Amino acid sequence: MDFQKYKEYFNKHDMFSVNNGMSLTDMGEGYATVELTIGETSKNYMGSMHGGLLYTMADVAAGTAIVFCGKQAVTLTAHTEYIKPAFSGKVIAEAKMIAFGRTISRCEVEVRSEDGTLYSKSIITMFITDKDIPIIETI
Amino acid sequence: MDFQKYKEYFNKHDMFSVNNGMSLTDMGEGYATVELTIGETSKNYMGSMHGGLLYTMADVAAGTAIVFCGKQAVTLTAHTEYIKPAFSGKVIAEAKMIAFGRTISRCEVEVRSEDGTLYSKSIITMFITDKDIPIIETI
Amino acid sequence: MDFQKYKEYFNKHDMFSVNNGMSLTDMGEGYATVELTIGETSKNYMGSMHGGLLYTMADVAAGTAIVFCGKQAVTLTAHTEYIKPAFSGKVIAEAKMIAFGRTISRCEVEVRSEDGTLYSKSIITMFITDKDIPIIETI
Amino acid sequence: MDFQKYKEYFNKHDMFSVNNGMSLTDMGEGYATVELTIGETSKNYMGSMHGGLLYTMADVAAGTAIVFCGKQAVTLTAHTEYIKPAFSGKVIAEAKMIAFGRTISRCEVEVRSEDGTLYSKSIITMFITDKDIPIIETI
Repeated sequence: MDFQKYKEYFNKHDMFSVNNGMSLTDMGEGYATVELTIGETSKNYMGSMHGGLLYTMADVAAGTAIVFCGKQAVTLTAHTEYIKPAFSGKVIAEAKMIAFGRTISRCEVEVRSEDGTLYSKSIITMFITDKDIPIIETI
Repeated sequence: MDFQKYKEYFNKHDMFSVNNGMSLTDMGEGYATVELTIGETSKNYMGSMHGGLLYTMADVAAGTAIVFCGKQAVTLTAHTEYIKPAFSGKVIAEAKMIAFGRTISRCEVEVRSEDGTLYSKSIITMFITDKDIPIIETI
Repeated sequence: MDFQKYKEYFNKHDMFSVNNGMSLTDMGEGYATVELTIGETSKNYMGSMHGGLLYTMADVAAGTAIVFCGKQAVTLTAHTEYIKPAFSGKVIAEAKMIAFGRTISRCEVEVRSEDGTLYSKSIITMFITDKDIPIIETI
Repeated sequence: MDFQKYKEYFNKHDMFSVNNGMSLTDMGEGYATVELTIGETSKNYMGSMHGGLLYTMADVAAGTAIVFCGKQAVTLTAHTEYIKPAFSGKVIAEAKMIAFGRTISRCEVEVRSEDGTLYSKSIITMFITDKDIPIIETI
């Protein structure tokens, strides 16, 4: 798979990610990085980055880390620890696969500020289907 | 607290929720309901509603179910089971508190289609701070 | 499957359960009940029932609720909310399946005292293998 | 605190751990190690180490990693990924604190075989009470 083309495609067509300012910045076999810069629409009414968005970054990163296998995968379960609130600046989610089987993969994702403050940590379990990722054919 | 005013305030000022089409439709002591209608920006590039958005609805509902106590609460941990993908129509998240203590609350949130199909279920644990919800003073 | 025979077999041969005083008391299609009476070896050094044992009851109940399908299943992920400590008396874990597919099942398990106090709640996700439960042939 | 004395006390008086062959082998500020050798009473009726026992080792390790603060702590939530079954030999649970605040701590615990095979990974969130650990006075 051409990871560069995948990233370009994703960053244009994953509409929920696009609408929320997320960008897939790195990916490979069992890892991926997603970034965004906190803006007004990233926040809850208390003024901090929304917990749903912190998780979304983790979900996107975990889903991308498994793309190398060429099959569509779906999230089965996700557990998130919210550790510190984020208020501004760049936020970086790094997914790292910790177990990879024929049908099940598990990723850890740490979401941090640019200076390394840990905002949240997720463990995400995905089910690998037997369907090819359709986009691979066309990009 | 005036729940009606809280809802109106939230639906205008919780910018991540507003930007993603979510609306707080009901709330009370230990429960809350959040709705959205799936649109193009609700979806991942595969065409189903983004798992991050399903979780976000749960997070907003759980956070609202605790508002009645008058104190700011933050999410400590969240666990989500993704059961079926959602493709279109109205999506409804209902939070119900299952345990409520002086500092810790636990909510279950079921996210369903209008006809009752269960898309996801979350358990969300929140920490209740000793800070008042600021908005209460002004609405 | 003969659930009565399965229970008898389990209660004699699931050695970790036997060694910790657990007993499978009810089971059917998508549900199961496990009981124990708190004794000295159920406790941590602080004098309350060990959190590992509360979870174990949930795990056994969830694993039994899926037995009706006739295939071996393994736990993929488990999430537990510890709500109140247990000190003495009978403890009852009731598992209820909330989603059941060809390869994945999800159970909720509530662990309570005899008078209904909720000690813990778990959500357990299991993977259904294609291997038959061996014991079925022989009991 | 005298960690050596604490270990000795725990290994005699944490009765659920003792009854299941667990032993606290190392501990310090934010980490702890628990070991056992799989025996007949460690197993489910399928012949592998019981998932409840794998989690129990994680719970004990996480609870010990927080002992250095001198306050009693209770488990709020626990999430476990079951990755590979364990059948025999020594099993080692290592807890490492990833976040530590005044009232909340989070630990990751990896449970492995002696040669490093990862059996399970847990994230455990604990609430730190304001009660002293009573045993400290007397050991």
